[in-house]
Amino acid sequence: MNPELSVSRRTRSTPFTSRVEAAGVKGYTVYNHTLLATKFRSVEEDYWHLCEHVQVWDVSAEKQVAISGPDAYRLIQLMTPRDLSKARIGRCFYVPLCNPQGGIVNDPIAIKLTENDWWLSIADTDVMLWAQGLAIGFNLDVSVSEPDVWPVAVQGPKAEDLMARVFGESVRDIKFFNIQPMYYKGVAMQVARSGWSKQGGFEIYVNDESLALPLWDELFAKGEDLNVGPGCPNLIERVESGLLSLGNDMGYDTTPFECGLNQYVNLDADVDSLSLPALRKHVPQQQLMGVVIDQACALTTLNVTADGQDVGEITSHAFSPKYGVHLAFVLCSLPALGAHLSIDVHTQIGMLKGQLTPLPFNFDALNLIPKART
Amino acid sequence: MNPELSVSRRTRSTPFTSRVEAAGVKGYTVYNHTLLATKFRSVEEDYWHLCEHVQVWDVSAEKQVAISGPDAYRLIQLMTPRDLSKARIGRCFYVPLCNPQGGIVNDPIAIKLTENDWWLSIADTDVMLWAQGLAIGFNLDVSVSEPDVWPVAVQGPKAEDLMARVFGESVRDIKFFNIQPMYYKGVAMQVARSGWSKQGGFEIYVNDESLALPLWDELFAKGEDLNVGPGCPNLIERVESGLLSLGNDMGYDTTPFECGLNQYVNLDADVDSLSLPALRKHVPQQQLMGVVIDQACALTTLNVTADGQDVGEITSHAFSPKYGVHLAFVLCSLPALGAHLSIDVHTQIGMLKGQLTPLPFNFDALNLIPKART
Repeated sequence: MNPELSVSRRTRSTPFTSRVEAAGVKGYTVYNHTLLATKFRSVEEDYWHLCEHVQVWDVSAEKQVAISGPDAYRLIQLMTPRDLSKARIGRCFYVPLCNPQGGIVNDPIAIKLTENDWWLSIADTDVMLWAQGLAIGFNLDVSVSEPDVWPVAVQGPKAEDLMARVFGESVRDIKFFNIQPMYYKGVAMQVARSGWSKQGGFEIYVNDESLALPLWDELFAKGEDLNVGPGCPNLIERVESGLLSLGNDMGYDTTPFECGLNQYVNLDADVDSLSLPALRKHVPQQQLMGVVIDQACALTTLNVTADGQDVGEITSHAFSPKYGVHLAFVLCSLPALGAHLSIDVHTQIGMLKGQLTPLPFNFDALNLIPKART
Repeated sequence: MNPELSVSRRTRSTPFTSRVEAAGVKGYTVYNHTLLATKFRSVEEDYWHLCEHVQVWDVSAEKQVAISGPDAYRLIQLMTPRDLSKARIGRCFYVPLCNPQGGIVNDPIAIKLTENDWWLSIADTDVMLWAQGLAIGFNLDVSVSEPDVWPVAVQGPKAEDLMARVFGESVRDIKFFNIQPMYYKGVAMQVARSGWSKQGGFEIYVNDESLALPLWDELFAKGEDLNVGPGCPNLIERVESGLLSLGNDMGYDTTPFECGLNQYVNLDADVDSLSLPALRKHVPQQQLMGVVIDQACALTTLNVTADGQDVGEITSHAFSPKYGVHLAFVLCSLPALGAHLSIDVHTQIGMLKGQLTPLPFNFDALNLIPKART
């Protein structure tokens, strides 16, 4: 039996926790000091359900860092090497936040709510403290806080139909990575077409604690014939989709270039960003890559080598029931890897071949055929 | 069954994790993005063992924020309202870190290693990011990093004897909250008389990963006749001892005065601290107090009231097998509390009387007699 998570006030519960527990949550992680479910039936059963139906996720652990005031843009631009100077209101932007050495501090979604009000919808580091430190030190005219907002995600191929039943047909008009206020029981809350899966869906930024359970219950009541179920960010779906996780696949010791996030760094931008000077001179020493291991049994992966030399570390790993292979991300030392196109993956059943491939996985190019659920 | 903790690379394992698992850990929390055990046999069995014998704790989750350079003192003094201007090398200092509003960002042990090298041995928020933000913004001549250091604590009444067998008799000369380098297999590592219990003991700041398991194993081998066992910060012992926990009992929304940490704020100090101006004007609106509930059965505590009005929130709670009562910390709204000396504690078995008392608990004054283990 795996050790249980000891829950305390420090591992914050959310307005949805009672429903998550009633739905039979079997595993948790702690993310931004907050409970985040990891599985309900099993990671694989949850995966198939997510790919075929619609799920409601308590993602309150996606905390918002609200940055407001005349210097809001200036502060956010200092933190990211992505050029946000032309950002439009009502848009979401995936932004690496980088320190002056180019290391990744966080990879939030930046949301421009008004000209002087932004949210950073953060991954698992205390971005608020970094932003507050910078704001104090640079004497910026901003407030930096973590407002009481508890996002709930509606994810899966039937998400749009379910959302339309609860929020009205106009929710269908929200484009990918756009956000706008929608009304629920007369209260305006931000709704974005986004979420931590590639199955499509929405995130509702619930800002009124008293509406959390009514909304949750209505999503389940109106989704019964859509086979709605409880869910959470799913490891298998995440790895198949090539979605990176801060702390697992990247962090302070990796740069956006080393993690394949090149498109989110604007080296030529004429903006004041803490990390751009270092990133302009940066020569990557490592590279996050995909690995495919053609093996169906459960694997405990140990180290990875090429020609008997350590080449790096597996950062995330899942068996893909759809493709019948193990998929992993590996952070490779480029000098150690050299020209190798495959690596040796040492496991509890011995050494296996791992085929290297760029991320996200291109299953067509890999000649992997999706199988139906068995 | 309580949900398990899903372990990933993000919930960092430590050099000791294999031994912690082999010792039968039953519960974990995540603290500074790192695994921290919460129980082995049971919280109560672990408690009695800690009070009577000696335990070895993997407290790698106590991360060190290393601040080095000519401006190291200046940066640390900005972060804390405690006057560190006369701090001596080789001493440990419990320091609230406070934001410009006086709210508590963290409550680390500050360790002065050399004139320009400090460690902050932190509780569960990313102090490194705050310190880096301030250092960048104020253009300070410091480096701020999280070095590879994995503290292991040796706690309990027999801790000194066990430590002397491993590190030599001179370890007995280390005074409370003093720290000095000691040698283990020829490698110098810092050893302090400190730890997150009131049972006495030491913390060893292991700085060489290859020595982690040899040290762990030697502590167990040499402590066999002392009844050494695996352990971890213990909820019962912590509450009995009045030790506060960041995120449970205090945080951004509480000031040191509201949590009874007055002695760590030097209002008259002539130092440059971000929070002192606000703390000098601060009028506490709430107060963390002790509560004693004379009841032996297991309790689920709900809300707390006085005259039918909500007065605050229970932040930590444990049944004390030694005193046969429930002990809790409660963060009381001072306007709501008024002159009440007790509160009504609403539980699953109905309303119970809770006697308010200052922290730490004074069991003599409360007429509570310690009982032997039954």
